Amino acid sequence: MKVIPLGTSSGKPTLKRNVSALGVSREGEWLLFDCGEGAQTQIARAGLSPSRLMAIFITHLHGDHINGLPGLLSTMGMDGRTRPLVLVGPPGIREYLDMLTRLKTLYVTYPFDIREVPSANELQVVFDTPEYTVRARELVHRLFALGYRVDELPRPGKFDVAAAIRLGVPEGPLFGRLQSGEDVRLPDGSTVKPSDVLGPPRRGKSVAYCLDTRPCRAAVELGAAVDLLIHEATFSEDLQDEAYEYGHSTAADAARTALDARAGRLLLTHFSTRFPDASELLEEATRVFSNTILAEELSIVEV
Amino acid sequence: MKVIPLGTSSGKPTLKRNVSALGVSREGEWLLFDCGEGAQTQIARAGLSPSRLMAIFITHLHGDHINGLPGLLSTMGMDGRTRPLVLVGPPGIREYLDMLTRLKTLYVTYPFDIREVPSANELQVVFDTPEYTVRARELVHRLFALGYRVDELPRPGKFDVAAAIRLGVPEGPLFGRLQSGEDVRLPDGSTVKPSDVLGPPRRGKSVAYCLDTRPCRAAVELGAAVDLLIHEATFSEDLQDEAYEYGHSTAADAARTALDARAGRLLLTHFSTRFPDASELLEEATRVFSNTILAEELSIVEV
Repeated sequence: MKVIPLGTSSGKPTLKRNVSALGVSREGEWLLFDCGEGAQTQIARAGLSPSRLMAIFITHLHGDHINGLPGLLSTMGMDGRTRPLVLVGPPGIREYLDMLTRLKTLYVTYPFDIREVPSANELQVVFDTPEYTVRARELVHRLFALGYRVDELPRPGKFDVAAAIRLGVPEGPLFGRLQSGEDVRLPDGSTVKPSDVLGPPRRGKSVAYCLDTRPCRAAVELGAAVDLLIHEATFSEDLQDEAYEYGHSTAADAARTALDARAGRLLLTHFSTRFPDASELLEEATRVFSNTILAEELSIVEV
Repeated sequence: MKVIPLGTSSGKPTLKRNVSALGVSREGEWLLFDCGEGAQTQIARAGLSPSRLMAIFITHLHGDHINGLPGLLSTMGMDGRTRPLVLVGPPGIREYLDMLTRLKTLYVTYPFDIREVPSANELQVVFDTPEYTVRARELVHRLFALGYRVDELPRPGKFDVAAAIRLGVPEGPLFGRLQSGEDVRLPDGSTVKPSDVLGPPRRGKSVAYCLDTRPCRAAVELGAAVDLLIHEATFSEDLQDEAYEYGHSTAADAARTALDARAGRLLLTHFSTRFPDASELLEEATRVFSNTILAEELSIVEV
């Protein structure tokens, strides 16, 4: 998986940072998390193809997480998209889109599956494919807000061609049967088992997206053992009171969540405009959880 | 007056052009016409101060003219704006903003005066100040759409200090009385009239804004004798059928409107993404109306 931050500013854009949006791409498809104003332009700058966007996940209805949605959805309509699109979000998002449709502000012509998540006190599946699953869980913000996690399913182990040939398996359809888990009987009467030629199953990768939230148990659950925890760090620790008052986290909070969740790495984002240089937030988090990086617009974080 | 195009693309943004928005500034204040996605960022790039924005005029509810409104309005709220703001627009805009407020998408804390213009078959005043007046008139689009014009009121003529002194008027309060139109009696018994020391009244400047529209009588009325007619030119003349089907104008249509209206100059904008280079549209219009220029993002057009 690749994670591409498309907007890292909280509340309002600056000339260097857009408001919240983040792409997760894998195998020629991608998912969008939040859709702040200007997301469609950032998507174009990142070279992500809107026609390969499979689903959009909105955390909550504050404008800096949703104001780019009507534009992106309509642009895909004008571009003649035919592929179905799934939208997952909090209650109210259907009413929002229905009204925009009625006013002719929105132009959606493709199959569009809106999935409101009315409550999520434990992780629940909101988007499921043969290759990965996305789950949602309610966080703790001023407004109903969802966090998400993406889990790739384990993939079969690598096929060891040399071992198969050494065991006398002829190249061809028997390779496929072994790969799909069947035993194979050879002309000499011997049997080759998948485990003879396949490496150990490969673990799927996982990513969690926790914006906007106070530090909470739910964020730890969302981030449990993920390879990459994407977490908001709106403020520094000396502004903790303000952070909590507005339902946000400090960089140190994000790091403690990563530590408690046993995450592999932590990606900080959603920086207050008070931090034009976010290195202070990085230092604060790194003191608690060393494997921390800062989200940079249009950079690529390999998972 | 200064006109500052903030977005010149129709329908969707490109990497070079934002969607519709345009500033008209005068005497330290300014007005915004349309507010497509990304307008607040373009406003910042243009160096226009949101706190000096007096009123916003929306032509119609298509997303490329309005999707930037929630973000701009909320940013001014977060920035602690206290100055009242007027918003003029078509029916539906109040419902749109009410819903966004209810969903907590919008954050407006300052006095906010929403003026819906339900119909406008002739020019009607929608915003009035001691120095200028803004009028609206319905255009012809797929959807109810308003055009606007700004007229500065005539200003008193220039005060001729040398003439006043020559006539024996002592420097001081008598100057002010003459400037405000009063006759003044001097100690020697003679009378000085304002017309003795004031030049001819100075004509106010005027600008019209006609987006989106088919060529129509209303656009000619809006543009009557203006110094600058800002008119959409979505397509070239060889795409006229498509232009009319979608309620738009060609560059030649815009030029004919400028000619019929006896406008001083024509500023073309709202270019289809099919014209990454709009010089073809400029040439087409110039053949009909020579005093034509192309809108360029963040440029300044002096009126």
